Amino acid sequence: MRPTGPTPRAETFPVNTPAAAQVFTTVLTQGPLARLEVARRVGLSPAAVTKAVRPLIEAGYLVEDVAEESRPALGRPAHLVRVDGGRALFAGVKVTGGEVIGVLTDLCCRIRVARHLPLPDRAPKAVLASIAELVHDLLAAADGLRAPVLGLGVAVSGDVDRAEGTVRYSPFLDWRDVPLAELATTTTGLPVTVDNDVRALTVAEQWFGAGAGLSDFAVVTVGAGIGCGLVVHGRVVAGAHGVAGEIGHVTVDPAGPRCHCGNHGCVEAIAGEAAIARQIQEATGVELVDAAQALTMAREGVPGAREVYARAGEAIGRGIATVANLLGPERVIISGEGLAAYDLFAEHIRAAFTAAAFGSAAECDVQTRPLPFEEWARGAAATAIQSFVRADT
Amino acid sequence: MRPTGPTPRAETFPVNTPAAAQVFTTVLTQGPLARLEVARRVGLSPAAVTKAVRPLIEAGYLVEDVAEESRPALGRPAHLVRVDGGRALFAGVKVTGGEVIGVLTDLCCRIRVARHLPLPDRAPKAVLASIAELVHDLLAAADGLRAPVLGLGVAVSGDVDRAEGTVRYSPFLDWRDVPLAELATTTTGLPVTVDNDVRALTVAEQWFGAGAGLSDFAVVTVGAGIGCGLVVHGRVVAGAHGVAGEIGHVTVDPAGPRCHCGNHGCVEAIAGEAAIARQIQEATGVELVDAAQALTMAREGVPGAREVYARAGEAIGRGIATVANLLGPERVIISGEGLAAYDLFAEHIRAAFTAAAFGSAAECDVQTRPLPFEEWARGAAATAIQSFVRADT
Repeated sequence: MRPTGPTPRAETFPVNTPAAAQVFTTVLTQGPLARLEVARRVGLSPAAVTKAVRPLIEAGYLVEDVAEESRPALGRPAHLVRVDGGRALFAGVKVTGGEVIGVLTDLCCRIRVARHLPLPDRAPKAVLASIAELVHDLLAAADGLRAPVLGLGVAVSGDVDRAEGTVRYSPFLDWRDVPLAELATTTTGLPVTVDNDVRALTVAEQWFGAGAGLSDFAVVTVGAGIGCGLVVHGRVVAGAHGVAGEIGHVTVDPAGPRCHCGNHGCVEAIAGEAAIARQIQEATGVELVDAAQALTMAREGVPGAREVYARAGEAIGRGIATVANLLGPERVIISGEGLAAYDLFAEHIRAAFTAAAFGSAAECDVQTRPLPFEEWARGAAATAIQSFVRADT
Repeated sequence: MRPTGPTPRAETFPVNTPAAAQVFTTVLTQGPLARLEVARRVGLSPAAVTKAVRPLIEAGYLVEDVAEESRPALGRPAHLVRVDGGRALFAGVKVTGGEVIGVLTDLCCRIRVARHLPLPDRAPKAVLASIAELVHDLLAAADGLRAPVLGLGVAVSGDVDRAEGTVRYSPFLDWRDVPLAELATTTTGLPVTVDNDVRALTVAEQWFGAGAGLSDFAVVTVGAGIGCGLVVHGRVVAGAHGVAGEIGHVTVDPAGPRCHCGNHGCVEAIAGEAAIARQIQEATGVELVDAAQALTMAREGVPGAREVYARAGEAIGRGIATVANLLGPERVIISGEGLAAYDLFAEHIRAAFTAAAFGSAAECDVQTRPLPFEEWARGAAATAIQSFVRADT
């Protein structure tokens, strides 16, 4: 099925050197900025910045405005360079066990359209058909936005080789070595970037969120699983063997509940959604119908239920302290669907983190950031934007 | 006290661009290499490599040899570029609680001379006097080596800001904010690099050891403390707040023995030298005179003693698995004085690592590397070599 929305057309994106990509990335992620400030931040001469900026202004990707608030009474007003977000669109799709969620964002990764479809079948062919249908819907919606769609990002949990565009192993889809980027390019006609879902979310924070401008930070996602994306020395950590950021399998208590990984007392075995539900059933004897019921019971003060969340918070806090003790990030951003229970475990996360952080590692700035579910798809769009900006460099 | 050995003289080291530093570093850490291969590895044109190499050959830092083993029967023989290690010397000093240990290495970080002195007093002034005396001895010994001494590295445990040359906090010396690089430069007349001891050892592995050519690896040191140096994306991790690599404070068992950090069941509280001695005393009722006695008792099969080492090995293996699960390094190098007990805990390290490693993180190559005590001082020399190579870039 070929999309029938605005035809993706070959765009001349005038970024073809690492220096030009760095200039554009700096303005995109940290702008608006004066040219001189861009030069300072990327370590290039003002002339080199001007050389990179000029064709980008001509092609409509950058604009230069007078900063009204900084207009001096006398002399030349400051001009600030910024990205024209409306110049291009990107699609992002997150594949979960039960549905595919898609967004269309602008070049600044602001969501313009969001859609989702149920996923009837997890076989690669069926998933591809669902992705194609979803992208088709998004492209149709893009018709009114009068900007070309320049890329598609797809986020999947598991071991994903972004450079190869391959899902090496995804336990919940039961996929091995699926060349998803190639297949989705054939199906949609768009350039496709495939990445692990937690890493994709981390890219969104690094370029467009609470990690912008930081060289070392972590994103911890709390939900069905407990995941972690790490940025070290300015780059997302992928792991030499396809595994990294497995904060969910940091051992909190070797005498704790058995984890699906085979060990006992992993963070995920105590603080993952299923683990919380199971522990609340055990503590209260009530058969739960869904995860929301666990929350309600804890908030209503059913004896034993709050303690489960307290232990979950403690496990998460210890996991974060382990990350801080090993890597010393500037900031840790906690996010994910599980934050719905934040009122129940926030203080326990903080107390356990502070107790287990070694020395000045406790100075790490631990933040929370609510995560609507389409944020996962937005993360996928962020990887597509990243690939677009760096494509020819 | 000014050193009276060969006068450190201003050397013209013809490396003044990042590209030239990269060429020299590649030959130093991965050579001998053909020029074309250097070009391939650093991503420069052969002409750019030749331009960087020529003045280095003229100044005697590089030599180009015909590779005898690869001499073809016909045609031009392959020329390999390598560093002339004897061209320059570097001093490295490790400060411990009881002594200062010094080495003199060549440019390839091969130890030529080793010396140590007792440390009668831990106050900065007294430590500086001991460093000066030790360096004086090393420089005197360098007299016969007919090469200039071009830098000094000093390694101290604790929170060290290498860029500033400051020991921010060293608990065992009870130092806070000591500008050690500046003080030692004044005392010795040499350019001085100050770094954390575990990071210095990691630099030695990265440039001259089992980490050469790897972009992601870890060094785990086992001894009085349990430390960890991390290289991620080709650079040593320092931590935004001065703390990183604290594998010794990964929690193995919250019901375990109390650690000096205030928590319970840290790796160091189970597998550090003092913890092992204490646990063996508790298990056997024998008052130990030194750490060696603990080893002897375990090897002789005194009931309870072997089990202490088994638990220590398990704790270390779990700590290493945590590093592998979070960062996915290509290799973990276990080293340190504690390796004297390797026969007693090796299999427990491996079993615990394998059990706790998540999925393909278990593919990480875990190696051991015996560590004579002067290796810590050699690590300090490696940081001085690194600073020298990068000084003007």
